[in-house]
Amino acid sequence: MKIEAVDFFYLSVPEVRCVGDGSQDVLLVRVCAGDHVGWGECEASPLVSIAAWNCPMSHSACQPVRASVLGQSLNDVADIERIHLEVRERSLDLLQADHTLSGVDIAMWDLLGKRHETPVYRLLGYERAAAKTAYASALFGDAPEATYDKARGMRSEGYRAAKFGWGPYGRGSAEADAEQVRAAREGLGAEADLLIDAGTVWQSDVESAAKRLAALEECRVRWLEEPFVSQAFEAYRALASRGGRAVALAGGEGCHQALQAENMMRHADLGYIQIDTGRIGGITAAKRVADAAVANGTTFVNHTFTTPLALSASIQPYAGLEEHELCEYPVEASDLARSLTTEPLGPDSEGRVVLPDRPGLGLRPCEETLRRYLVEAEITVGGEVLYRTPEI
Amino acid sequence: MKIEAVDFFYLSVPEVRCVGDGSQDVLLVRVCAGDHVGWGECEASPLVSIAAWNCPMSHSACQPVRASVLGQSLNDVADIERIHLEVRERSLDLLQADHTLSGVDIAMWDLLGKRHETPVYRLLGYERAAAKTAYASALFGDAPEATYDKARGMRSEGYRAAKFGWGPYGRGSAEADAEQVRAAREGLGAEADLLIDAGTVWQSDVESAAKRLAALEECRVRWLEEPFVSQAFEAYRALASRGGRAVALAGGEGCHQALQAENMMRHADLGYIQIDTGRIGGITAAKRVADAAVANGTTFVNHTFTTPLALSASIQPYAGLEEHELCEYPVEASDLARSLTTEPLGPDSEGRVVLPDRPGLGLRPCEETLRRYLVEAEITVGGEVLYRTPEI
Repeated sequence: MKIEAVDFFYLSVPEVRCVGDGSQDVLLVRVCAGDHVGWGECEASPLVSIAAWNCPMSHSACQPVRASVLGQSLNDVADIERIHLEVRERSLDLLQADHTLSGVDIAMWDLLGKRHETPVYRLLGYERAAAKTAYASALFGDAPEATYDKARGMRSEGYRAAKFGWGPYGRGSAEADAEQVRAAREGLGAEADLLIDAGTVWQSDVESAAKRLAALEECRVRWLEEPFVSQAFEAYRALASRGGRAVALAGGEGCHQALQAENMMRHADLGYIQIDTGRIGGITAAKRVADAAVANGTTFVNHTFTTPLALSASIQPYAGLEEHELCEYPVEASDLARSLTTEPLGPDSEGRVVLPDRPGLGLRPCEETLRRYLVEAEITVGGEVLYRTPEI
Repeated sequence: MKIEAVDFFYLSVPEVRCVGDGSQDVLLVRVCAGDHVGWGECEASPLVSIAAWNCPMSHSACQPVRASVLGQSLNDVADIERIHLEVRERSLDLLQADHTLSGVDIAMWDLLGKRHETPVYRLLGYERAAAKTAYASALFGDAPEATYDKARGMRSEGYRAAKFGWGPYGRGSAEADAEQVRAAREGLGAEADLLIDAGTVWQSDVESAAKRLAALEECRVRWLEEPFVSQAFEAYRALASRGGRAVALAGGEGCHQALQAENMMRHADLGYIQIDTGRIGGITAAKRVADAAVANGTTFVNHTFTTPLALSASIQPYAGLEEHELCEYPVEASDLARSLTTEPLGPDSEGRVVLPDRPGLGLRPCEETLRRYLVEAEITVGGEVLYRTPEI
């Protein structure tokens, strides 16, 4: 089979709000080869990632991603590996290429799974998909009372783990943050795992982060996520040594290459490495990080805050790693994100997510949702139309 | 002053060839504040970097770069620092943002220099700009004879250092590469510094790179540049230990954040850190890397392969560091790149480059060149024109 067509669909809610909700738009990718169609998703700015697919060549190492994908053979996993290497070479100086490639890669895996009539996780070498404990992933409420109410709701829905992040956390006093964390723990009850996400609010400022550790320990928080930006290895390591290991550090969602995540595991002293298949370079790169996590003794966990399709893609790379048991599950996703696929993918009554035992990612986009949220876009350079929203 | 307008000009030669010549297109940035105008340049895919300026917001941490720049106060260096922090927060998940910010940052420094009637390097704290020894930077010839001829030419033009890279290097046998390096040394004569650039050809494959070390040592090559991609810290370190320090390693041009370059210096065992102000986040980020290089005992050197404006911007961050004496000087730049500014910036009769003692970057774009090479582009989303090539 040859890759005959790759199409990008930019979907968005009508009005995007300035909040930390990453499910307000979607960049869906459709790959066609032979008689098969695969779907993937970039966790990225849709317009910019489309431009990285279509842009004119700047020089031999700054070519659009399409130069390494269209017309390529796609029959087995080795073909995907080869395409990755070509993108690495030809799009070396195109920064956004990694985010664009991510969605294309996921769609290629979905397509190969359909062609071989097997789930992606089997193509990756896992015999079966272990059930993952879903952690309900949500934003902090504006006030502790709102956070408490959210946590109560999660408890009553049967979640065994929950994460709160962004919003006011880290933007006021350490005491205000402590109140938020206590409200979350109180609402959740004593049993459930509690995770806190600082959303890189302290950039690389170790002292500001360290002031929050006592309350996190008091509330038995399992991990503090992204106190710093992904490249702040030294800050992570310094904070880890201050935490005395009572509170582990989690991070890595910002990584856009497997090597970057491997460096972070090696040098930032993380307890958990969080990988978004929609950013790291797709399932291919995420699986490489999962293998490295096992070797390094770091726990792998998916990062995802959007659609069931992205959730499936983000779990496949560590589906068979039973000891890496948690998975992120976005509980506040937009209608666009929730309705993107014809079938849902969510936790069972025991709060566990099990990947579908169906070919590819086991899910397909809902045409009606695509029509409802599709954004018309057009890019013209030198009189030539490089991109126009395709037909569904 | 407030930043009232930021305009992007996409310039390109009529036909871009698939060779490692990064001077075939240019993304020029114009910043207007008060009565002043500053110019900068992104070393990036023009279309994709324009999209990162103009794209619709995806969520609070995936906003276009413009959201953190337009309307901001710009009176002193602290304002630039604040704008950087805002971009870091608001465009955290927009990968291409770093490349877009780079050109905007450079233009802001140029503007501040003009406003304060002083060269950028003085704003950076350097009393004077030391003369840098220009190394003539060129691509390998297709055959050793062509490389020899190029090297002879450089010698006759008085260059005291030269670099050859890309082209066939690393793509054939180790012996073929050795012939290329010997041809370069022979053409250049015994005295001049010789540098070799592998253009990341071995990705992270230490053995392939190690096979080239003997010939590099034999020809007294001062550095081997980018045997691997920027994130391959372990491969760099392994190769450095094999080289026995006879041949130093150079790298870093792919870094798009100061922290990334700092990690590379700390963990990749580099002798030279090469920073492109058009990618790293502009002069602000490059200066931070230069300071870290001094602290770390690594030698800082600019990376640039394009215009006199980019050359000036790339030298400012280490202008006052006399011991960091080399600077890259592209000798094969396109007519577009060479004619971009009304005045040249090149080596004197002793092969040294001295920054102009004029306000800002000391250079201004040539209107005629802009008109000749301007590319018409337009980006529309949801019926709204987000970008249209501006008036010059």
